This record gives sequence, structure tokens and C-alpha cells, in this order.
Amino acid sequence: MSDTALIGLDWGTTSARAYRIDRDGAVLEARTAPLGILNVRDGAFAAALDTLLGHWRDLGAPRLACGMIGSRQGWIEAPYRDTPVSLAALADALARIPEAMLAIVPGVRTRDSRGLPDVMRGEETQILGAIDASEPLAFAVLPGTHSKWARVEEGRLTAFTTFMTGELYGVLIAHSMLGRLAGHEPGRFMRDAFSRGVARGLAGGELLHDMFGARTLALTAGLRSEEVADWLSGLLIGREVGAARAWAQRAGIDASHVRVIGADALADRYELALSDAGIVAARGVADAAAHGLWRVALHAGIVTAAVEA
Amino acid sequence: MSDTALIGLDWGTTSARAYRIDRDGAVLEARTAPLGILNVRDGAFAAALDTLLGHWRDLGAPRLACGMIGSRQGWIEAPYRDTPVSLAALADALARIPEAMLAIVPGVRTRDSRGLPDVMRGEETQILGAIDASEPLAFAVLPGTHSKWARVEEGRLTAFTTFMTGELYGVLIAHSMLGRLAGHEPGRFMRDAFSRGVARGLAGGELLHDMFGARTLALTAGLRSEEVADWLSGLLIGREVGAARAWAQRAGIDASHVRVIGADALADRYELALSDAGIVAARGVADAAAHGLWRVALHAGIVTAAVEA
Repeated sequence: MSDTALIGLDWGTTSARAYRIDRDGAVLEARTAPLGILNVRDGAFAAALDTLLGHWRDLGAPRLACGMIGSRQGWIEAPYRDTPVSLAALADALARIPEAMLAIVPGVRTRDSRGLPDVMRGEETQILGAIDASEPLAFAVLPGTHSKWARVEEGRLTAFTTFMTGELYGVLIAHSMLGRLAGHEPGRFMRDAFSRGVARGLAGGELLHDMFGARTLALTAGLRSEEVADWLSGLLIGREVGAARAWAQRAGIDASHVRVIGADALADRYELALSDAGIVAARGVADAAAHGLWRVALHAGIVTAAVEA
Repeated sequence: MSDTALIGLDWGTTSARAYRIDRDGAVLEARTAPLGILNVRDGAFAAALDTLLGHWRDLGAPRLACGMIGSRQGWIEAPYRDTPVSLAALADALARIPEAMLAIVPGVRTRDSRGLPDVMRGEETQILGAIDASEPLAFAVLPGTHSKWARVEEGRLTAFTTFMTGELYGVLIAHSMLGRLAGHEPGRFMRDAFSRGVARGLAGGELLHDMFGARTLALTAGLRSEEVADWLSGLLIGREVGAARAWAQRAGIDASHVRVIGADALADRYELALSDAGIVAARGVADAAAHGLWRVALHAGIVTAAVEA
């Protein structure tokens, strides 16, 4: 394990992931624990880090974290940086906890066209980790509880916007009448119902009205109960895709191609919805957070790049 | 109690209300119990009705109900009638349970401009109870878990649309990150935060993005924690008002005046939001369901109007 140059940490609200990274920036191993900041009591972050790292804690490698661990509710606050930001700019603004050999990447802040603030913590590292600085221009989505859409220009994150899609879907299925209609067992993916939901979402209209459609369609045999959840998922993702495209167009961003950063079933859904919207989707790299953390660590001088023999 | 001509029942999903109505159609007394259809086990509706009525059950008066009790999950199904409907048309389509001296008003069904079904059960009776058949034209909102906006023309309900505003607010406050930000104690009404939310909602945009604003405003000192819930309430109600106005305009409905049917704090919020939107609001009558049930009962011949001496 002496080949460990950096321990990268993607430390969020509900879970934390650690990467063991070698001198070439390659991920050797990863560990995950349900030790997100909401699950750490009384500020016991040092103990949580020990638990997460296990025997890695004796490796002596420097640690670099991104995510909610740098928020006001986290271990130490790493104040937001305003857009545009590069990985080098993030590296200049790390918060440090020397006794834990830990540095924390700051989050990023912007404002929407009507003055509402928008923020991210952790996603900036994933997005800039997934999109190479040599690319002149990219438009990317990071699907999730709070989906982020971002423009990257030559390695700088220049604009982004957030949609609460994942969280809204979760609370509606778990706690609303729509969840009761859907039943309690998540079943296999209902592609057709999902696409019908996407079509409705892409068509615009008022979400507060359209979500009631899951009920009325179920009532009138337009949806079987096992289709309700995927129709609703499609509706919400379709709206998000349509709204993100409109946002991009207002900002002068080419939205005909989108990078989907993620490797799970949710990313698959976004690819389908993008395809239904006539947008070309490409997948980002795996372990985008680890890539981003490695490159921030290089910029910050926490690690040095391996010299070719 | 021999002056009881009709027992009217507004029997919904979570609660049930009974009205004792005299020969002039006046409400003498009301009783409420948490015996909505979701709280009645194994189809024991007869026992639930006995409990709700108490000593009224021995009055020998006929009973007329509206609401979810007439749904497929209720006591007996009273199939939906398509718009347009009048109270007389509803009276022609009652479902009857003779052994309980009970008749049930059907719900109403329509389709939106893109073919999605929309439904109501109980609200048709309240809306037509609140708006006199002598009025040539009225536009009304019934705020609630699932808010209904409806056009009434000379006593006929001709068009309506539903927004899941109340339910969405409820699940977000109880179960999402926004509720955690808002704290757990409902405090006094924060008028200014509410109006700022209304303004944001009226301005349009994407709700999935805008609701995240409750978090970012709280984070950046744009909202105090005790203001978060009312800002979100304003955002959702503002969106509903804006979307309902756009819906009305597409349907050729004059949306400059709106009747608010309701007598609670929620109706007060709708009046404020309508005022912020430049729409003139007027309050509907109290006990609109009882009025509507009385008039359906007259049309159905269940009761006869008192003859003036």
C-alpha cells in the first residue's frame, strides 16, 4: 500500500466515499460508509474519518475531500467560490485541518437570471474531474437528489443550475398519494410509461397540475399501478431536461450534446430522456470525483505528478 | 330535532363532516370526525356513518353525501360525469344505498388541453353550492390538498383544472431538506417572505429549480429559518395562481375576478397571492358543501322546498 499518493474523499450529506489513489492518479480501491454529515453526531468527524478509512488511516497519505464536509454543518467551512472557477482556483482556496492531514475543496456559488442564489458542493470537483481541461466547451449533467447542469469552458466551470428532481421524486413516492397509487415494491423499469412521462414533461405546462396526472391516469386505466412510479420519474426528468435546455439557450450554451456524469440506473434514465428530447448524450468517466480530487491535489502541491522514467 | 330535513355529508379521504339541515336549507349544526375513507377498515362504512352521526342517526332524515365516499375505494362507486354538469345533472346520477337512507353525488371528469384526464369528487358540490345559478359567469378556486379552479356558467360547471399544491407543500415540509431548514415549529405567518415567494412563483420559471431557492436563500441569509416555510408556500401558491390564470386565458375565461371558496387560513393566503397577482378576490359562502348538497337534494326530490306561509 506504499503506492498510495492520496486519499480522496467525496463526503456528502448521507454517505461518504474514500478513494485510494496512486502516484499516477489511478484509483486503486474505494470504500463507502453511511457517514454523511447528517449521520455524524456532535461534530465527531475525526472518529467518522477513522471509521471510513479503516486500515488506510495508517498509510500516512494526505487526504483531500470535497462535498458537504466543507459546509457550515460540516467539519470546517470552506467558503463558496463564485463562478467561473477552475480546479486551480479551487486548489487556491482549500480549507485545512492539519491534525487530520485533511484539506477540503470549497463549493461554488452563482446566481440565476432573476437573482436567486445557486450553490454546489462536491459536484464542482466531479464535473471538472470528468471534463478534461483540453476540451474547449462542454455541457454536462450530474443527475441526483439535486441535479446539476453545468457549462465548462477550457477547464473552467462558468455557469450551472440546480433542479431538485431526485429529492422531489423521493418524497412524492415515499409520502404522497402518488406513492400509494404506485404500490410499495419497486419493480422492473417500465420503459414505455417512463417515455410517456418524459413526453409530458418535455411539453412544459405546470408541474403542480401535471403530477396530478399520475393519479388521473391510474384512475382511468391510462396507467397500471406498476407504471405510476416510472411515469412520474419520466415526467420530472423530462421537465428537468426541457428546463435545462431552455436555461442553456438563454445563456447561449449549445445544448445539442450533453455529457451525463454518472454510472448508475439514474444516469441511464437521463440518457433515455435526453434521447427522447433529441439531445445527443455521452457518458462521463467513472470515479469523476476521484479524478477531480487528484487534479486539485496536483494544483495545490499536495501531491506531485509521477515523473516518467 | 324534528326540524331536520336532510343530513348532508362531505365525506373525503381523511375526514368526514356531517351537516344537519332544516326545511329551508339552513345549516343547524355540523359534526366532524377523522373517518375519511382511508381511515375506514374493511369496508365498515355503515359503522363509520353511525359513529359520525351519533344521535342524529335516529332522526329518520335522508342522507346525501359528496366526496371520496363515492369513489371506487369508497362505499359504492358513483361514476364520474363529464363536464359540463349542473346540480340537476348530478341529481340525476346519484348512487344509492337504500338501507343507509343514503345517496351519493357523482364526481366530475374532464380532460386538459393535452388530453390528460382531470377529476374532482366533492368539490363539484362545493363549487356549485357556493355559486348561485343566477350568476351568468364565475371563476372560482377551492384551495386545498388538491386545489381546483373552475368556471361556472349559469349554474353549470363547464371547465376545471387541478393543482397538487397543498399536498406538495405538505410532503416537502414534512419530509424534504426544505422542511429541515424550516425547523419543526409552525410559527406566526411571515407575510413578507410569503409575498417574496409569491413573486417568484408568479414570474414562472421551473419549479424544480425554484424550490431549491428556499435552500440557497437560507444559506445566503436571504431567508431566516422561520421564513423558509412561508416563502415556499408563497412560491407554490404563486405558481398555482399564475398557471391558473394562464389556463383561464387559454380557455377564454375572464380571470380578473376570482371567487375564493373557503374560510380558513389557507383561503387567506390565496387572497393575498391573488392580490399580489393583480386579481380581484371575493370570498364564497360558508358551508358551501352543505348548500350544494341541499340543492342537489331538491333537484333529486329527496327533500322538498318549504312552502312560504
